[in-house]
Amino acid sequence: MTFTISDKDKNSKARAGLMQTAHGAIRTPIFMPVGTAGSVKAVHQRELHDDIKAQIILGNTYHLYLRPGLEILEKVGGLHKFNGWDKPILTDSGGYQVYSLSGTRKIKEEGVTFKSHIDGSKHVFSPEYVMDIQRKIGADIMMAFDECTPYPCDYEYARKSMDMTHRWLDRCINRFDATEGNYGYDQTLFPIVQGSTYKDLRKQSAEVIASKEQQGNAIGGLSVGEPAEMMYEMTELVCDILPADKPRYLMGVGTPANILECIALGVDMFDCVMPTRNARNGMLFTTEGIINIRNKKWEDDFSSIDPGLTGYVDTFYSKAYLRHLMISKEILGAQIASIHNLAFYLWLVESARKEIISGTFYEWKEKMVGKLMQRI
Amino acid sequence: MTFTISDKDKNSKARAGLMQTAHGAIRTPIFMPVGTAGSVKAVHQRELHDDIKAQIILGNTYHLYLRPGLEILEKVGGLHKFNGWDKPILTDSGGYQVYSLSGTRKIKEEGVTFKSHIDGSKHVFSPEYVMDIQRKIGADIMMAFDECTPYPCDYEYARKSMDMTHRWLDRCINRFDATEGNYGYDQTLFPIVQGSTYKDLRKQSAEVIASKEQQGNAIGGLSVGEPAEMMYEMTELVCDILPADKPRYLMGVGTPANILECIALGVDMFDCVMPTRNARNGMLFTTEGIINIRNKKWEDDFSSIDPGLTGYVDTFYSKAYLRHLMISKEILGAQIASIHNLAFYLWLVESARKEIISGTFYEWKEKMVGKLMQRI
Repeated sequence: MTFTISDKDKNSKARAGLMQTAHGAIRTPIFMPVGTAGSVKAVHQRELHDDIKAQIILGNTYHLYLRPGLEILEKVGGLHKFNGWDKPILTDSGGYQVYSLSGTRKIKEEGVTFKSHIDGSKHVFSPEYVMDIQRKIGADIMMAFDECTPYPCDYEYARKSMDMTHRWLDRCINRFDATEGNYGYDQTLFPIVQGSTYKDLRKQSAEVIASKEQQGNAIGGLSVGEPAEMMYEMTELVCDILPADKPRYLMGVGTPANILECIALGVDMFDCVMPTRNARNGMLFTTEGIINIRNKKWEDDFSSIDPGLTGYVDTFYSKAYLRHLMISKEILGAQIASIHNLAFYLWLVESARKEIISGTFYEWKEKMVGKLMQRI
Repeated sequence: MTFTISDKDKNSKARAGLMQTAHGAIRTPIFMPVGTAGSVKAVHQRELHDDIKAQIILGNTYHLYLRPGLEILEKVGGLHKFNGWDKPILTDSGGYQVYSLSGTRKIKEEGVTFKSHIDGSKHVFSPEYVMDIQRKIGADIMMAFDECTPYPCDYEYARKSMDMTHRWLDRCINRFDATEGNYGYDQTLFPIVQGSTYKDLRKQSAEVIASKEQQGNAIGGLSVGEPAEMMYEMTELVCDILPADKPRYLMGVGTPANILECIALGVDMFDCVMPTRNARNGMLFTTEGIINIRNKKWEDDFSSIDPGLTGYVDTFYSKAYLRHLMISKEILGAQIASIHNLAFYLWLVESARKEIISGTFYEWKEKMVGKLMQRI
């Protein structure tokens, strides 16, 4: 994987770049739609490509490990072959999911023992095994196995957890370096900065992660309930330490405003379930602001869903029709809203990229943050 | 509306024809996907057009009357404008749905009083009002308001019900003739033959319906639980009486075998929820037979869903991936299966049409009926 930065914003730390992976290029800053079980919910792969213009999608190691399972994934030749998405894929390490199974998992130095949410069966994820799993999934970008601390988290726990994440990182890197891609193409491994909301821990973690000199780096443990200002503070602190010439991935973030603010802090990559999850509940992010499409006010609004977007769902369907589908619990409602929200997120990062290249990012960002977050 | 028959099968009563409506042509025999609330479940309008190659879809008067309601439909200029489907639409009369609300509806000569399944509100459908509603929906083909008797149904009830359906038909025709399309284009009205499974009643009803000389005629009250042989017997009896130069629509039918057998009896139009409803449960109709895609045997079958079809979902996705989506309860599974099953149904009727034109329909039908219904 290579990464080249083509443009930098003068008034912020935003940058525009280009990543090259075994499955093609990614223009940054980028948003990555989440495809938990190898499918971005309610969206066809063709729609991801043509309508949403996704350049890279996520898969979840925990979910894919349980279903369809490694045997199937190996047999078919990896996730790209399984779901037909031939552009880049990033897999998380399963850490976040496993820790979310509170009550059914045990964290030890060796690894994590957990019970499947599907059938209660017992499994163990160690840093080494998680590398092996991601080799079998075949993601272009693999993530280190970390512990994602909750918010709030007391200092001692955060420090101990961070230290273990760092020790686990060494084990991940050792296993990653000792193995090769299963399917004839290169994969890369991103370490993850932890440290909860403690500046000294974040600084320490960022320095450790930076010292590993991997091809890209991630910031984890944020967007877990802390105030946005705290997230920005931690992100800025960490971005300033992580290598400037490597892509920075802020995990699980966030709202359109969060994304623009963090681009301004030097983040290049984002993922979040918000656009798809909220879509299924009728919450739309648009170029004019946030819409609850279930509101009665839209029942006879036959205008396009978002006049600011030019894709299929935004020019073909009306707000009134989408509202009707949502109220009537028609699956098509979730489909339209999911495509719309993802297309909006991709439009957002592509617009940010253009503004960075034009040298107008900061002013544009300041204007957009307020506009995009207002409820209309 | 016009209907011209271009070809007739020598060895059966099958015929190939062309209907012309205000929203374009329909090649018969045809299958009409069901779009209950103005949406064919889990399918985009673009997919209906490009992938399924639907020529006409159904809307349900009862559902559309309750949601989005007539005010919205009138404001936008009818269902075509509301859902963006610019090809022909047929609406049922709501009779079947209203009668399905057993316990909450009362049938009288004047009309039917029923309670909404959504909010329990009370409504009255009379033959006249159902015509007015369908004028407002703007369907190219409107259906008469009838009583659909259950199976089994005692003779006396069936006779009385049929007589009332005939009286209601006169009221429908009177109202239809006294009104015009709301949106500047012509609509047509199909009467419905009833008579349960009694030959003399079916004969009598078909004669009454034929005497009304409408532009097309429908056969109702079948596919409600009676044995297939009984359905074929009634269909044949009725088809032989209904005008040969008008399209014949067999309501709510059926399996691929049912459709081929009834094409052979002279039916031109079909609708059924089976392809979409069964799709959502993982039952696929394919050119090789019936598949339960949830079966373990498909978990590592990476071949296309149906090698006999050439559309997007059948060439892009594999059986194993679709199985995984279904098992994982991913919405995309329902989407893929729905497109596949509908594409298969449209392929089936288009193939039947080609065979009729080629003069080989009967032999082909005999071969296909067994093949398509085997479980593989």
